[in-house]
Amino acid sequence: MVDITLLGCGGTQPLPDRALASLCITTGGTTTLIDCGEGTQAAARRWGISIFKIDAVLLTHFHGDHIFGIPGLWQTMAGLSRTAPLLMAGPPGLDALLQTFYRVAGPLPFAIRTVELAGCRGSFAVPGGLITAFPAKHRVPCCGYRYTLPRAGRFDPARARAAQIPLPYWGILQKGECVGGFAPADVLGPPRRGIQVVYATDTRPCAAVANAAADADLLCMDATYAGEEDAAKAKLYGHATCRQAGQTAAKAGVRRLWLTHYSAAVVDTAPGLAAAQAVFPTAEAGFDGKRVSLNFDEETPK
Amino acid sequence: MVDITLLGCGGTQPLPDRALASLCITTGGTTTLIDCGEGTQAAARRWGISIFKIDAVLLTHFHGDHIFGIPGLWQTMAGLSRTAPLLMAGPPGLDALLQTFYRVAGPLPFAIRTVELAGCRGSFAVPGGLITAFPAKHRVPCCGYRYTLPRAGRFDPARARAAQIPLPYWGILQKGECVGGFAPADVLGPPRRGIQVVYATDTRPCAAVANAAADADLLCMDATYAGEEDAAKAKLYGHATCRQAGQTAAKAGVRRLWLTHYSAAVVDTAPGLAAAQAVFPTAEAGFDGKRVSLNFDEETPK
Repeated sequence: MVDITLLGCGGTQPLPDRALASLCITTGGTTTLIDCGEGTQAAARRWGISIFKIDAVLLTHFHGDHIFGIPGLWQTMAGLSRTAPLLMAGPPGLDALLQTFYRVAGPLPFAIRTVELAGCRGSFAVPGGLITAFPAKHRVPCCGYRYTLPRAGRFDPARARAAQIPLPYWGILQKGECVGGFAPADVLGPPRRGIQVVYATDTRPCAAVANAAADADLLCMDATYAGEEDAAKAKLYGHATCRQAGQTAAKAGVRRLWLTHYSAAVVDTAPGLAAAQAVFPTAEAGFDGKRVSLNFDEETPK
Repeated sequence: MVDITLLGCGGTQPLPDRALASLCITTGGTTTLIDCGEGTQAAARRWGISIFKIDAVLLTHFHGDHIFGIPGLWQTMAGLSRTAPLLMAGPPGLDALLQTFYRVAGPLPFAIRTVELAGCRGSFAVPGGLITAFPAKHRVPCCGYRYTLPRAGRFDPARARAAQIPLPYWGILQKGECVGGFAPADVLGPPRRGIQVVYATDTRPCAAVANAAADADLLCMDATYAGEEDAAKAKLYGHATCRQAGQTAAKAGVRRLWLTHYSAAVVDTAPGLAAAQAVFPTAEAGFDGKRVSLNFDEETPK
């Protein structure tokens, strides 16, 4: 139901074979992009993401490795004759930043709608789901993002029949809309678990990330440094070690953990992965083009 | 003596396997970069160009595919602890453009010295040679660049002996410096042919390019479109076809022609190369990482 693609897993500097950290969430023909450093548009092409279908761009913060791909992305969208508005969200200062980029990249044939997240908090809809921003812990204001694809409650045909709801209304009520004096609550059980993906980089391990990631299907988290010998550096620069990412995943009880935003000094990701797996056994090392399809939980037929 | 590296040969949009058009001129431990679109710094790493040793960046014009890599290049230079000033040259509007980029990329630990080329004309020195800008013919003001590594005249020991110049002075005079009342002209013949490289994209074929490229060792030129069926489009958008690049090379009498700035629609460069070779038989297709070492002409010993 939801395809997740890690376009890049690198931090700070784009490398020939490791693009800057960026994640795509694709569902129902629409894509939400999180972060857009230099080279993100080329990475999207490399991994089969349609640039035309990116409807929302969420920026975690305004360090260059997360934003310098924006002017080029905009111009490529313009070259593809995009006219649909583009939603862009980010921490306070977003409008000023985008105005600066617009000076070098505009004019554009599509509108840009912005959501400035005061205090790095807020909830809003994107074409493919719901976004909740939370404050990550970095050197500058930095948003973590929790993406949710909601799932309505189970439809109960027995209740529908008992309430004498005509058959043509069933599908409409199932979609969550009222019809003919009937409401979805008349026939639907409580909302079921949807799909949740949490993106948290750049960040220290902190309660905000662990809380936001509680029970998520996937946490994609800052793992800038491989070993604990760099723990002090991680603290100084507002990042996490691989082990700290694993600890956050364990605390949050997530189903999957992807390590990302590796320092350019991390040539081999295996030692960092081992460190994360020591505390969260199913941790996975991020790599450019890593992909997973997430589905709603299976249910036993009644 | 001079290494030329084509970092990318693409126009408009960076592709996973074709970086945006950019050329490096490396000599004596210093590099001059021409154009810096999104992805240029990653291409430099890919092809073994030290970003730390780039001392000058020449911008042809301000379309996004030629400039969006600048903020990232600056920040990577800063990350490498560069303190040496960086020379940047380009058409009028350069200072305003760089100020805009500085708003998103600064502060930086090195100074940026700019050369705004009024009318896209002017000559100035870079650490590795001399640059002469000339107006290319595009939709916006666009500089072509002629790079020269000059070569002094041949040293004549007979004249030095006849003038009773002490032996320790010979090397100094040979370097073009005066010493002990003697001048280089006392012992050197007329200046010899140096090494000339001309970069001309984005541009129409025109007299300015042909004149600037006269007798050059290498012309690296706009060849956006493969075939003459796109000649009208080339005219409309201010570009050249491969055949037109070949015609310019033939008119200028250059030694080598590299075709570059291919449209993303050009998947196979062979047909365009054939069209260029029909008028300039030694034309070469540009590709990412293409490289040549250029040397001074050999001379028969006297």
